[in-house]
Amino acid sequence: MFETAEVGNRLSKEAYKAQVPEVRAALLEAQKALAQSGLAVVVHIGGVEGAGKTEAVNHLLEWMDARGIEIHAMGDPTDEERERPPMWRFWRRLPPKGRMAIFLGSWYTDPIVNRAFGKTDEAELDRDLERISAFEHMLSAEGVLLVKCWLHITKDLQHDRLKKLSKDPLQSWRVTKRDWRFAKRYDTFRRVSETALMRTSTAEAPWHIVEAADPRYRDLQVARILLKALNERLEAAKTPVAPAKPDRPKPPVPNIIRSLDLTRSLSDKAYDKRLPKATAEVGLLTRRLYEKKRSLILVFEGPDAAGKGGAIRRLTAAMDARNYRHIAVSAPTEEERAHPYLWRFWRNLPRLGRVTIYDRSWYGRVLVERIEGFCHHEEWERAYTEINAFEEELTDFGILLVKFWLAISPQEQLRRFKEREETPYKTYKITAEDWRNRSKWNAYEAAAVQMVERTSTSWAPWILVEAEDKNHARVKVLETVAEHLSKGLHGKR
Amino acid sequence: MFETAEVGNRLSKEAYKAQVPEVRAALLEAQKALAQSGLAVVVHIGGVEGAGKTEAVNHLLEWMDARGIEIHAMGDPTDEERERPPMWRFWRRLPPKGRMAIFLGSWYTDPIVNRAFGKTDEAELDRDLERISAFEHMLSAEGVLLVKCWLHITKDLQHDRLKKLSKDPLQSWRVTKRDWRFAKRYDTFRRVSETALMRTSTAEAPWHIVEAADPRYRDLQVARILLKALNERLEAAKTPVAPAKPDRPKPPVPNIIRSLDLTRSLSDKAYDKRLPKATAEVGLLTRRLYEKKRSLILVFEGPDAAGKGGAIRRLTAAMDARNYRHIAVSAPTEEERAHPYLWRFWRNLPRLGRVTIYDRSWYGRVLVERIEGFCHHEEWERAYTEINAFEEELTDFGILLVKFWLAISPQEQLRRFKEREETPYKTYKITAEDWRNRSKWNAYEAAAVQMVERTSTSWAPWILVEAEDKNHARVKVLETVAEHLSKGLHGKR
Repeated sequence: MFETAEVGNRLSKEAYKAQVPEVRAALLEAQKALAQSGLAVVVHIGGVEGAGKTEAVNHLLEWMDARGIEIHAMGDPTDEERERPPMWRFWRRLPPKGRMAIFLGSWYTDPIVNRAFGKTDEAELDRDLERISAFEHMLSAEGVLLVKCWLHITKDLQHDRLKKLSKDPLQSWRVTKRDWRFAKRYDTFRRVSETALMRTSTAEAPWHIVEAADPRYRDLQVARILLKALNERLEAAKTPVAPAKPDRPKPPVPNIIRSLDLTRSLSDKAYDKRLPKATAEVGLLTRRLYEKKRSLILVFEGPDAAGKGGAIRRLTAAMDARNYRHIAVSAPTEEERAHPYLWRFWRNLPRLGRVTIYDRSWYGRVLVERIEGFCHHEEWERAYTEINAFEEELTDFGILLVKFWLAISPQEQLRRFKEREETPYKTYKITAEDWRNRSKWNAYEAAAVQMVERTSTSWAPWILVEAEDKNHARVKVLETVAEHLSKGLHGKR
Repeated sequence: MFETAEVGNRLSKEAYKAQVPEVRAALLEAQKALAQSGLAVVVHIGGVEGAGKTEAVNHLLEWMDARGIEIHAMGDPTDEERERPPMWRFWRRLPPKGRMAIFLGSWYTDPIVNRAFGKTDEAELDRDLERISAFEHMLSAEGVLLVKCWLHITKDLQHDRLKKLSKDPLQSWRVTKRDWRFAKRYDTFRRVSETALMRTSTAEAPWHIVEAADPRYRDLQVARILLKALNERLEAAKTPVAPAKPDRPKPPVPNIIRSLDLTRSLSDKAYDKRLPKATAEVGLLTRRLYEKKRSLILVFEGPDAAGKGGAIRRLTAAMDARNYRHIAVSAPTEEERAHPYLWRFWRNLPRLGRVTIYDRSWYGRVLVERIEGFCHHEEWERAYTEINAFEEELTDFGILLVKFWLAISPQEQLRRFKEREETPYKTYKITAEDWRNRSKWNAYEAAAVQMVERTSTSWAPWILVEAEDKNHARVKVLETVAEHLSKGLHGKR
């Protein structure tokens, strides 16, 4: 694979000088078009130590309008980053629409380095690369253009360059112990990188191998690759896309939600006995999260007035206000809309040891956004896979994740709506939108059935709660949380 | 001062039960109004250890709609926070308009604790409190309602409570060594807190001392204080405010900008000699920033086409792309508009060791926003003081800050506009807005003169650069940066 970048491509000073102005003008032109577009650009500059990654980036910045291009040199994670899943530090640096980010060091770095130093085996590398492919597929579908350049030099040239730099008093700071440690493993790195690049070179995000022996050739080549990718994608983006249409699926009957026994209830006496017990247990267990380096994420979905708020209040009564966050998910902000839809959830991921309760969640994509036509069919369709991958990243990091669907009958919803309108301190809970959503009951039910089918995983199960009777629903929620915490924290109940 | 909170206020269980529903309904009502308003709410719950701060917050959350209320328990700063000025961690947590944040631990904590443990003297405490007052004044003027509650208990009661909690196996985790260490200094804390509260109790952000001996009285009192403050401020916000008007000041003649000798120039020969020298110096010195735990912020202001971009490109050519950020300041986003105007600059403050170059900056407040009527007279008028305070916080933390005003004549601007329109890779730089701004040349000059007068401080000086000749301007910028870096890093040149 890398042989194509060992053929001796060079560029004379004259040829370079003659070509730069044209490339530069074209880059600026493309950048201007980018600013007006719905596209975000992520450029990865990877490659062998000593190949001149930073120099190539310096030139790109010089040739383009550096305002609005963010450079992210990914060093060691900060402690805020170490307290979140590994991908968090990349998500938080994703550029919004119209802008460009250049990464020196990327989500490829750890998988490659870990394999090269034998910290992972071939199977783990495989899994890492599969995840990267899925992630990049999603980014691409969400309007992020990925331009991936790999700067290559031979082992001998690497050795010469590092030697020469070390001897130059003005340049020696560039060469670190890490560089030498990596250079010693040149062959291993070459093999692992080759695997990584081949496995993640896709139609939507291909790798470009750049021969980096000659700096002039290298820098102009990188610029041309970026330019070509930008122009192709900007051109493609000109094709008008039909607006998204609402989808109003019909629920299959019987289905998993209708088959719930909504007559299940709990007497006040039993409630008064079991609720305090579960509350105490949740309180004790949530305090142990931090010492065990775990966190807890709870997701609540269900029809309006299903009792999400009430169940959440019983839960939070068990906890210390300092340790939980209650996030009500509503329409995304302008900044959030300029990023992939999962960005706003990554952005608010809690630190270790905390409990985060989502009152509605990323599942909006396959519920309200699907039904109201806020996204295209392909978008909500692929969201199932994307959400499963997202939740797997969370749980792999040690986050306990439990999702509740609170189920009530349409009759019960009507009763509660009316009650809310009549109780002074409850009227704030009911809006015209609630009534509108009610008229689409069947579509919401169908979407929910499909959601549960497609996203109930071993790592993040859906718990269906019969919520017609509030006593029953609340006790079930608290006891379930206690049970998952107990299992999660102790390995067994 | 605290005697008023030692009078034995109590509330019977019956009275409490009778009063809670009404307070709760009113709180929810106010919260609903808040969500629609242009107001953000910051609640500080401070006070003596063992007074029940967390419990009071728990109750507030239970009574209100907890969605959208953020609780910030301010523990030790993270490493990302330690690499920024101390106020950064509070700025990043300021709620946007329509929302509420409750702080357990606040910008009062360090000043009080440091004084109580003798780490600072009375004069330093004074300065800290003055800064807090200025900061809160600004927040209040920017639409942030500050509600500050101080929960007080006597020394004896504190001792009893901590003892009792320690003995309860379900509660003992609440009592830390820190609590006992603080309790030992009850009298000192009482004295220092009293000073702090008296000095920072202003009309716009008064302190409320709450007798916290009886939990029922305490929690209901906190709720009532919040409710009253909310309702008063929401009521006041109903008075319509006249829209802001453009301000078109006339420049005094002579003035400091017109008195610049714009004929100053530099031959190409001299330029080719001095620029590379300054470039190398800037390159070397910026690399030392990290090891010296400093950073560098450069601000560029000046008329369109004054050469800001060109000067910045010469600067960045000297640096490693990994170490600098080039921020072009344009219109704020929706999220930024929902916060005080300085928020977006705090938000993007670089970590230690970095260089940040602002192409336009927070000075937009007293330039474009003033002239175009994007803010009120009082707003840009107070901005001078606010900006000076902001810059003092940056430089106190060890950030080197240099501000450049690039000056050209209107004739030269016209020449450059025309040139830009004729050069393919420069046309992107010129827009209709540039021509519109040009027609307000005098107003911009007058605003700039006043800006330089009011914000050129010993800690953050304005450097006026004669920019009619690009050679001269670029060399002056680079040499000035080198000089400030050299002084800042070594104490002397």
